[in-house]
Amino acid sequence: MHVTSQPSAGGVAERLFMLGDIPGVLWTPVGAAGPRPLVLLAHGGGQHKQAPGVVARARHYVTACRFAVAAIDAPGAGDRRKTAQDLAHAAAVRQRLEAGQPLGPLLAQDNAERHIRAVPEWRATLAALLTNGLASGPVGFWGVSLGSAIGIPLAAAEPRISAAVFGLAGHENLAGAAARISIPVEFLLQWDDELIPRESGLALFDAFASPQKTLHANPGRHAAIPAFELAASALFFRRHLLAP
Amino acid sequence: MHVTSQPSAGGVAERLFMLGDIPGVLWTPVGAAGPRPLVLLAHGGGQHKQAPGVVARARHYVTACRFAVAAIDAPGAGDRRKTAQDLAHAAAVRQRLEAGQPLGPLLAQDNAERHIRAVPEWRATLAALLTNGLASGPVGFWGVSLGSAIGIPLAAAEPRISAAVFGLAGHENLAGAAARISIPVEFLLQWDDELIPRESGLALFDAFASPQKTLHANPGRHAAIPAFELAASALFFRRHLLAP
Repeated sequence: MHVTSQPSAGGVAERLFMLGDIPGVLWTPVGAAGPRPLVLLAHGGGQHKQAPGVVARARHYVTACRFAVAAIDAPGAGDRRKTAQDLAHAAAVRQRLEAGQPLGPLLAQDNAERHIRAVPEWRATLAALLTNGLASGPVGFWGVSLGSAIGIPLAAAEPRISAAVFGLAGHENLAGAAARISIPVEFLLQWDDELIPRESGLALFDAFASPQKTLHANPGRHAAIPAFELAASALFFRRHLLAP
Repeated sequence: MHVTSQPSAGGVAERLFMLGDIPGVLWTPVGAAGPRPLVLLAHGGGQHKQAPGVVARARHYVTACRFAVAAIDAPGAGDRRKTAQDLAHAAAVRQRLEAGQPLGPLLAQDNAERHIRAVPEWRATLAALLTNGLASGPVGFWGVSLGSAIGIPLAAAEPRISAAVFGLAGHENLAGAAARISIPVEFLLQWDDELIPRESGLALFDAFASPQKTLHANPGRHAAIPAFELAASALFFRRHLLAP
């Protein structure tokens, strides 16, 4: 793991790193010593590790909760080398958007494939952050839409993740992994999601084996999660990642 | 309105009052001057204005949020005079419980009737608290189960209520009133509710006209709302009852 830069602003230190060909970023409170919870933050489709919403969320968890936060570019996103498959997918998305065709089936298929590359990358990143002493734990995960298509299989495979926020995803490709998850889960559902049918999102919430799971549903389309869910997720992570 | 006692403990002043034959209680922060939000707290079936869960919730809103909180006994509950109808209902509930029969239809019918008496009582209580200078506003409402059977028609009728937490209720008798509500709503649903079918609870959430409404669903039976929803409701009331 190679740390490439170390700027800081507003009390938040931001370290860019490379792990092999995976570009990532780690945010921590400036001048804070000692172990602290780490939240893994997975971006959505069409975004990257430093998209505005990702950075704002990371800074909130660092400043309001004093957590560390890590993000990496998903396969094909941000600073990652694009494969022929990535380029073909991006072209297909553009084509459908221009033609006014529904994106749902295309995204569902791509999400289902992308986690196969992404899960080992997240596990390697987490291991490197912990063994290099850049982070400690307990470890939480936040990711919706593509972030859940990757994060749900990740949390099913990675025992070091002890609480997770998922959402904007349906049961079709994910119910099996959800049924292997028993950590506390907060699940975000958009009541008028144009990509994920309501029943499919409710069925995915139902599929988690977690005794502690909580569904937060709000009106609006896929990308319209209300701003107040940021504070709600911080409350969730405090509850589960901080010692009582 | 006649204040009958004024004890205080742990920083919370507790004033019992009578408004005609309606017994109520008002909790406020000890020694706090000036206007503050008021939360109306409606108890569930079989409970009363000073049931342990009601008092604990009131004290949390007073100490954590510096709000005032008011509760009254619902018709037939607590210190209220019981009508022949109240006594017959209580006997029918006991009988069904002893016979192991489902309570759902009986409670639904009783809840649907009880709000006819309760809504004017709540409105008179609110008016008296405000005109006597015992409380100010903005005004929130919290009530689930019987508290929603009363609270949803109440909020539809009472323009001074500007944010409400409802839940544990179905759409059958309440969808009409919900459709006349446009204030921010937080709605609590128990995923394995033995009294309210899941689909009926989801349909009631769907029925609110509120542009800002948020559904919190958790696993478990009717009476098993997780303790963390108390802090979540405080976050909701802070968001909507405090000036930004």
